[in-house]
Amino acid sequence: MESFEYQAGTKVLFGKGQIEHLPEEIGKFGRKVLLCYGGGSIKRNGIYQQIYDLLKDCEIYELAGIAPNPRITSVKEGIALCKEHGIDVVLAVGGGSVIDCAKVVAAGVYYDGDPWKMVSENIQTENALPLVSVLTLAATGSEYDDGAVITNLDTNEKLGYGNPLTMPKVSILDPTYTYTVPAKQTAAGSIDIMSHLLEQYFGPDNTYLADQMLAGAIKTVIRYAPVAVKEPDNAQARGELMWTSSLACNGILSQGCAYGGWCCHAIEHELSAFYDVTHGVGLAIITPRWMRHILNEKSVGRFAQYGRDVCGITGLDDQETAEKAIDETEKFFASLGVPMTLRELGIGEEHFDEMAEHAGRGRLANAYVPLLKEDVKAILHDCL
Amino acid sequence: MESFEYQAGTKVLFGKGQIEHLPEEIGKFGRKVLLCYGGGSIKRNGIYQQIYDLLKDCEIYELAGIAPNPRITSVKEGIALCKEHGIDVVLAVGGGSVIDCAKVVAAGVYYDGDPWKMVSENIQTENALPLVSVLTLAATGSEYDDGAVITNLDTNEKLGYGNPLTMPKVSILDPTYTYTVPAKQTAAGSIDIMSHLLEQYFGPDNTYLADQMLAGAIKTVIRYAPVAVKEPDNAQARGELMWTSSLACNGILSQGCAYGGWCCHAIEHELSAFYDVTHGVGLAIITPRWMRHILNEKSVGRFAQYGRDVCGITGLDDQETAEKAIDETEKFFASLGVPMTLRELGIGEEHFDEMAEHAGRGRLANAYVPLLKEDVKAILHDCL
Repeated sequence: MESFEYQAGTKVLFGKGQIEHLPEEIGKFGRKVLLCYGGGSIKRNGIYQQIYDLLKDCEIYELAGIAPNPRITSVKEGIALCKEHGIDVVLAVGGGSVIDCAKVVAAGVYYDGDPWKMVSENIQTENALPLVSVLTLAATGSEYDDGAVITNLDTNEKLGYGNPLTMPKVSILDPTYTYTVPAKQTAAGSIDIMSHLLEQYFGPDNTYLADQMLAGAIKTVIRYAPVAVKEPDNAQARGELMWTSSLACNGILSQGCAYGGWCCHAIEHELSAFYDVTHGVGLAIITPRWMRHILNEKSVGRFAQYGRDVCGITGLDDQETAEKAIDETEKFFASLGVPMTLRELGIGEEHFDEMAEHAGRGRLANAYVPLLKEDVKAILHDCL
Repeated sequence: MESFEYQAGTKVLFGKGQIEHLPEEIGKFGRKVLLCYGGGSIKRNGIYQQIYDLLKDCEIYELAGIAPNPRITSVKEGIALCKEHGIDVVLAVGGGSVIDCAKVVAAGVYYDGDPWKMVSENIQTENALPLVSVLTLAATGSEYDDGAVITNLDTNEKLGYGNPLTMPKVSILDPTYTYTVPAKQTAAGSIDIMSHLLEQYFGPDNTYLADQMLAGAIKTVIRYAPVAVKEPDNAQARGELMWTSSLACNGILSQGCAYGGWCCHAIEHELSAFYDVTHGVGLAIITPRWMRHILNEKSVGRFAQYGRDVCGITGLDDQETAEKAIDETEKFFASLGVPMTLRELGIGEEHFDEMAEHAGRGRLANAYVPLLKEDVKAILHDCL
C-alpha cells in the first residue's frame, strides 16, 4: 500500500434547491464576483436569472462563452477581468470546462507571467482567488478536485494543471440542474465518469478497498447512465451520476494505490487538442481498444476480476472473462449512442505520429501496462 | 436521494514515517502543545519518545491516562490544562478514545459552562483549538470525522458530541503504529469498523452507489481483520484496515442516504455506560441479535442483498440468504476471538430496563426498522 497525502476540503451542498445558500457562501469571500459560464444553456434553463436574483447585492462581472475543452484565451480574458475589477470570488456555473477554466483564472491572477507557461509547467502560485462552483453537468469531477485541463489551439496542446489552492471552497450540486442536459452530453459525461474510475481500477498496485469501491462506482454508472439518457428527469439516476462524478475524480476511491498513468486520458487529450472532439466521445472510442491492446498474461487476472466484479460474468476462465468484459464495456458505450470510431468523427491518421509522440509526455512508459509511442499509434489505428 | 451538506477538510498523511511531518504541521498552529494519550502503550512502543524528539522546540503539556470509553473527568482536566498554559494546539496520540477526548477538550476551552452540559446538549462552540491526531488503532474513525463519544460514570451515560470545529486539521495514519496492537484490540477495533459500515448499510433509503461502496468496505474488513489478528505486522492488512476505518465513519460512503438510527451503537453505548465494556466487543454481541430481531418481510430483501453482495451467498431464496448471512456475520465476529455473550462479560439483566429506556434517546423509533423499548430489551435478552 502506497503512502499518500490527501485533503479535499470543499463544502459540498447537494440536492434540489441548494442554490439558496449561494448568497451566504459567496458573501464569505466578498461582493465582487466573476461569473464564469459557457455557451448560454444556463440562460435557457433559468439558472442564470436565478443567480442574478440571489446575488442582487453583489457586483457581477462575466466571463462568458467558455468552450468545451476550455481555451487558454478564455483564461487570459478571465484573469484580465479579475485584475481590472478587483474580483473577490470566482463563481463557475457549468460543467467541468467552465470550472476548469475558472480554476486557472483563480490561480492565474496571482501569476505574473504568461498563463500558458503556468499551465504547461504546472507552476504553483502563492495564492488563488476563492472559487465557488455550481454544477450543471455530471462528468469531470472538477467540482471536487484541484485539477483543470486547458487547451491551446495554437500549439495543439491540451494539458492538465493541478494546484491545491484551486480546489473549490463550495460546490453546489443540484441534480435537477442536469435534467435539461441533452442525451448526447449525458452519455459523454457518463463515459467520462466511467473512464476516471477505469483509469484508477487498472492500476499497477491497487488496494482491495479501492478495487471494491471503484467497482461499485463503475457499476453505478453502468446502471444509471442509460436511465438518465432515456429519462432526463429521473431524479435517482441524475443524483447517483452527479455524486459518482464528484467522487470518481478526487482520489478518495484510490488513495493508497500506485498511479497507473491514466492512459486513455493521455491519448484522448491528444485527440481533443488536434480535433476538439467531445472528451467523453474520445474516451469511448479509445478505451476498449486500449483494453485489448494491454490485455496480456500479466494483466489478464485484473481484467478477469473486472469481468466478474463489475460485469457479473461467471463460468468462464480468466482469458475468456477478460475478453468478454472488454466486449461488454464497448457495447455499453455504444448503447449510450455515441460514435465508436474515429472515422465517424472525420478523423484520419494524419496526426497519429505527432499525437503518439506527445501522449502522456513520457509518463505512459511507467503506466500499469507501459505504452511506448508505437503502442499509442497502434491503439489509435485500432480506433479508426 | 437525500440532500446533504458534506465537508471533510482534514489533511490525511498516510504511510510509514509520516510522523516526520509533525513539527511542520504543529508549527502552523503554535508551539504550546497539549499532548493527549492513553494508558502508556505509546511509551512502550517508542512513539512517545519519537514525538518528544520531533517537537523539541515545542512546550509540551500532558493529558495522560485517557481511558477507553473516555471520561468527562479527563475532558475537564484537559480543558483546565489548556486554560492554565495557553495551549495553541491539541495533539492526540492514540485510538478513538484519545482523539474523542481531545476533540471535546479542544471545543470545551471555548465553552464557559459545565463541559458535560456541552456534551449532553450537543452545544456548538464559536471556536475550538486546532487538533492534530496521530492514530495508533484502526477502529473508530475519529481521526477523520467531527464526532466524539464521552462517558460519564456518575450518571451511567455515554453520549455522542458532534462539532465541525473539532474535525482534526491533520491526521497522521501510519499503519506500522498498529503492529503492536494486541489481537483482542485488533479484533474489537475491526468489529467497530464493520459496525459503522453495517449501521449505514442497513438504512431506510440508500443510494445504489452507497450500497456498493459500503459492501466493498465491509468485505475489506472481513478479508483483512483475520489477517491482522494472526499476523500483527502484516503491512497490507494493517494499511487496509486503517484507511477503511477512516472512511467508514466520516460519512463519505453514505452521503445521499437517509439516516438509519445506528441502532447497535445506541444499544452498545448503554452497555458501555453501565459496564465499561470494550466497544467493539459489545457491538459483536449485539449486532447479530439486532439483525435477527429486525429481519422481517420488509427488511428481508436488504438482508438478502447483503448476503449476496457481501457474503457471496448464492442459490438460496431471500429468507434463506438473509438468515445465512446473519449466521455468517456472527461466525465472523466469533472467529476473531471475542466473547459473544453478555454472560461471558459477567453482565446480567439487572439494568436492561433502564438501558432500553435510554437507548438512542428516542431516535430508534425512526430507525430503519423502528425499535421501541421492548425491542431493545428483547435484543439485550437475546445477548445474554
